[in-house]
Amino acid sequence: MEVELKEMLDDLLSLRQSLSDPSLHASIDKLQSRIDRLTHLAKSVPVRRSKVKDMSSEVVDSNPYSRLMALQRMGIVENYERIREFSVAIVGIGGVGSVAAEMLTRCGIGRLLLYDYDKVELANMNRLFFRPEQVGMTKTDAAVQTLTDINPDVVLESYTLNITTVQGFETFMSSLKNKAFRPTKEGSGVDLVLSCVDNYEARMVVNQACNELNQTWMESGVSEDAVSGHIQLLIPGETACFACAPPLVVASGVDERTLKREGVCAASLPTTMGVVAGLLVQNTLKFLLKFGHVSPYLGYSSLKDFFPTMAMKPNPQCSNAACLERQREYLLAKPARDAAAKAMMEAEAKATVADVALHTDNEWNISVVDDNEPESTCVTSSDVLPEGLTHELPSADEFLKPHASGAPDMAIDDLEDLRRQLDALNAD
Amino acid sequence: MEVELKEMLDDLLSLRQSLSDPSLHASIDKLQSRIDRLTHLAKSVPVRRSKVKDMSSEVVDSNPYSRLMALQRMGIVENYERIREFSVAIVGIGGVGSVAAEMLTRCGIGRLLLYDYDKVELANMNRLFFRPEQVGMTKTDAAVQTLTDINPDVVLESYTLNITTVQGFETFMSSLKNKAFRPTKEGSGVDLVLSCVDNYEARMVVNQACNELNQTWMESGVSEDAVSGHIQLLIPGETACFACAPPLVVASGVDERTLKREGVCAASLPTTMGVVAGLLVQNTLKFLLKFGHVSPYLGYSSLKDFFPTMAMKPNPQCSNAACLERQREYLLAKPARDAAAKAMMEAEAKATVADVALHTDNEWNISVVDDNEPESTCVTSSDVLPEGLTHELPSADEFLKPHASGAPDMAIDDLEDLRRQLDALNAD
Repeated sequence: MEVELKEMLDDLLSLRQSLSDPSLHASIDKLQSRIDRLTHLAKSVPVRRSKVKDMSSEVVDSNPYSRLMALQRMGIVENYERIREFSVAIVGIGGVGSVAAEMLTRCGIGRLLLYDYDKVELANMNRLFFRPEQVGMTKTDAAVQTLTDINPDVVLESYTLNITTVQGFETFMSSLKNKAFRPTKEGSGVDLVLSCVDNYEARMVVNQACNELNQTWMESGVSEDAVSGHIQLLIPGETACFACAPPLVVASGVDERTLKREGVCAASLPTTMGVVAGLLVQNTLKFLLKFGHVSPYLGYSSLKDFFPTMAMKPNPQCSNAACLERQREYLLAKPARDAAAKAMMEAEAKATVADVALHTDNEWNISVVDDNEPESTCVTSSDVLPEGLTHELPSADEFLKPHASGAPDMAIDDLEDLRRQLDALNAD
Repeated sequence: MEVELKEMLDDLLSLRQSLSDPSLHASIDKLQSRIDRLTHLAKSVPVRRSKVKDMSSEVVDSNPYSRLMALQRMGIVENYERIREFSVAIVGIGGVGSVAAEMLTRCGIGRLLLYDYDKVELANMNRLFFRPEQVGMTKTDAAVQTLTDINPDVVLESYTLNITTVQGFETFMSSLKNKAFRPTKEGSGVDLVLSCVDNYEARMVVNQACNELNQTWMESGVSEDAVSGHIQLLIPGETACFACAPPLVVASGVDERTLKREGVCAASLPTTMGVVAGLLVQNTLKFLLKFGHVSPYLGYSSLKDFFPTMAMKPNPQCSNAACLERQREYLLAKPARDAAAKAMMEAEAKATVADVALHTDNEWNISVVDDNEPESTCVTSSDVLPEGLTHELPSADEFLKPHASGAPDMAIDDLEDLRRQLDALNAD
């Protein structure tokens, strides 16, 4: 807009020079001051941050990645910057999917693939991410707009389509297969698929795609009463697929979404959806960057803050043919997996033996302490604090010393004393 | 901006009429088309949503509260609209506080009081809420800007100050005491204080203020390695205050924040902070709207998805004088509390007796089932589904019926059969 205003000003000034009648100059001046004001207004329009080539761990306020690269220094992640190699597909950009997309974008994920066919509505404003001025836009367009502003380093691909249609499913499949972003990657073109859809039909379609592609994915969901949710890890052939243990009751003959919207409008809360998105992306980070333990299933029951976990094996009588194929492959690969596990255990055992060999002169790591050493100099390593830190409470030794000040002595000698003190407290 | 452009167009058209030389009309036309283009550009600038007088539960896309009011229909909350009466103070608008503020704003909280003295930096971009174009603004100003756009119905009060200074503490206290928003409220002017600060000193100040005001508050925190966090409910006199069990090690003689930033830059993640903010605000909603169970303490250890809980009683030897005063008051009020609890229990018992009295003709609720009734008509209430829903799996009865179709019979008669089927599966 600033460029346009500058051009307009130039046009105006050349018009002024062409004017023979000086009485008209006042009108030109007025127009010029209007352009100046507009230029000032336009300057308050957001400026985007520029792209960053490498993730720096430098601790300066201007580094958007300093707090993430600190995960390496803290010993949580071995190589944080690897996150730029990964592609994550998010199906459903609603209350959970949009927040998951924002979290991954702020974490500096390499590439995000976004799928949704819905439009932003005011009725979505009780969940995080979308803003009222985006009402009417497709959720994919609105998400790309917001995410690009937040972190231009992330490669965004958005698909405004319904994966449950034939055409939509085909595009979905081919987008997952596309390996242009990292041609050396094995398997499909994405590292993980996150299902953040709100209905059974769409979940079954994601399940079908991932079973066919042998693609690991994570399921997420929030209950209709808005107060509980879950996430689940699905590895084709290794864990239960979504069809291995389907829900007991499903919609049939009617559109689930219509049923939900016009019949019994589902409740939703930004809290539950924020927690579910957070748990989902935290497990995504653990999965991609190989730290901690990825939960096979994690529930969130907010009324009592209860978080059930469980693991589900695949169902040998699953109705999904691709799932049965993956199960067969997984069984066939068992001897190879066992051999690899055995080799790793043996290597670890050897390493341990090597470690022990270093201490043959003191096999049990025994050291002798001089009993006569005065206690006051017996400082253990945990008592030594880095500069600037101090113990908030006195140490046990200090606590037992008699008080030097005039304050009443709180040390309790016997039960009688304790009773007297309690009585005094109650009498206050 | 559109108004300014319209005025400019009027000026330009009047200039055109004053021009005696028609050869200059082309220049005017060019300027006019430029204004048209700018008007078109300006129209893409965000339009805010207007205020809403009452929270409607009407299920239409344009209602920003439909999914929240649905909590009533779902039987979770008795009166959701009461949320508009409540005031919540959030101290610290960082990774947790800003998300908590956004969640409460989207939930339609009555009034939010925000406290922070820091500015937005690019180094904050790895957490939710703030955007790169807000870099350099105070966190309070940036938050007010974003939150007003999201929900203009919320009354926002922001305080750009450091509560750990003498002047800052005074303003903090008087803002909490101010009851202009709901003059009939008992106690202070706010319903809950959320502490979302990142250092010990500020937590002790919030603790001091809340002990003095007898104000219930919630503490939150995230570890320096970014992979765990917690929330805690503190009711002066009833639960442990923050000084009742202080951390074992604290900073002394140096500024904790400096220590953290330049020495060992703390790691942070949008996931952990999003989860902690979600758990914090979910418990805030449970506390304000009286549903579910408010957790006294809830930890989040993300590496293993472990959520420890505990409750802490106040320390009779707490170093905080105001805490001891609140403890004394709580003890003094014990007889009144016990009497109230007893009265409530008796009332409930009476109600139960009254319920039973309705069924004196069948005290044990026994009904007789005719054993000769044919099984096919024995439909229990759980088998009857609302229109549009169907069982995904066959019922146990159907499963045992012999297959009518030409598909291979999967019923297993004996062990020999089972072995044959397994062999066939492995041979595939």
